Amino acid sequence: MFKLYFAPGTCALASHIALAEAGADYTVERIDFKTNQQNSPDYLAINPKGRVPALATERGILTETPAILAFIAQSFPNAKLAPLDDALAFAQVQSFNSYLCSTVHVAHAHRVRGSRWASEETSFADMKRKVPETMGACFALIESKMLRGPWVMGEQYTICDPYLYTIATWLEGDGVEIATLPKLAEHHRRMAERAAVKKVLTGQG
Amino acid sequence: MFKLYFAPGTCALASHIALAEAGADYTVERIDFKTNQQNSPDYLAINPKGRVPALATERGILTETPAILAFIAQSFPNAKLAPLDDALAFAQVQSFNSYLCSTVHVAHAHRVRGSRWASEETSFADMKRKVPETMGACFALIESKMLRGPWVMGEQYTICDPYLYTIATWLEGDGVEIATLPKLAEHHRRMAERAAVKKVLTGQG
Repeated sequence: MFKLYFAPGTCALASHIALAEAGADYTVERIDFKTNQQNSPDYLAINPKGRVPALATERGILTETPAILAFIAQSFPNAKLAPLDDALAFAQVQSFNSYLCSTVHVAHAHRVRGSRWASEETSFADMKRKVPETMGACFALIESKMLRGPWVMGEQYTICDPYLYTIATWLEGDGVEIATLPKLAEHHRRMAERAAVKKVLTGQG
Repeated sequence: MFKLYFAPGTCALASHIALAEAGADYTVERIDFKTNQQNSPDYLAINPKGRVPALATERGILTETPAILAFIAQSFPNAKLAPLDDALAFAQVQSFNSYLCSTVHVAHAHRVRGSRWASEETSFADMKRKVPETMGACFALIESKMLRGPWVMGEQYTICDPYLYTIATWLEGDGVEIATLPKLAEHHRRMAERAAVKKVLTGQG
């Protein structure tokens, strides 16, 4: 039994979908960002970084989306969420997810989380203005060089797909038109049709 | 046979050390950042992201430090660079490395790479001023909650160690005194004593 700590609209959605895809036995607990619950003493005892997602397992807490996703794939091999028997193919899955967390998510975060890296309102406004350009560049690269289609890694659905889907839900707010990225738009549409995604998005998973 | 594309002073050092620790058969090729070689057509054909490291394998190119490190650990199981038979312990290794790439490296990058996320000189200066605080906070968390000692994961040396060592070499320039972090300082000293690290740093590996 796992427990996923999440907040709506965050990257925790990727781990949530992966748990549902894996057929895992799990519960979820919503952390209320409006009351800053992520920085409450109770939650900091779970994740001292004050972020979501965090996955409680029988042997301790796990944080960071790429690590949680790979863990779910390895824990439920029958769900075939990653090429577990091929180190290079597995590394390519990890490489994609690492790019999402270290470059794409970070580019997005400069829209409303500028105070993580600067102190002046003028800097926050400057960062915010650049987000359509940086997110646009990230997704142009994903569209042209990374997304093999129909899924990120080609014919096989993997843990890259819910993560890409999750970050792509931010594009409209980031000023990037998904319609300008045909492969991504098709990926987004396919993802929304999956039973696991519907279950999670309607609060039934 | 692997080939690692690297530049001095970058996070590519972590993969370089891991290759040496693994006893891998590899060569290295230095990419000259002073002439912007990372954005040359030849290098962009290797890594369209225009970054290092990139690891050329017989089956294609691999990028992103956490993915390369896990790939090295899985490709050389006898080197015992990760707990490969324990999905949760492996995920904890990955969680640490994911934190380094998505939070710590990113905090550091705001010192001289502000133009990735903003456009105004005043914003770059603001970002630069905040780096001692953000890197200090990251390493305070690493010191108090993550670094088990003597190695990151405890008694077993893993792929977390060369990555932490690499990023810690940036601390002085980032305005964080390593002496204020006793566990980290000891880790840094131990790392510098390892044969693989000496070999790489003296250009013999």
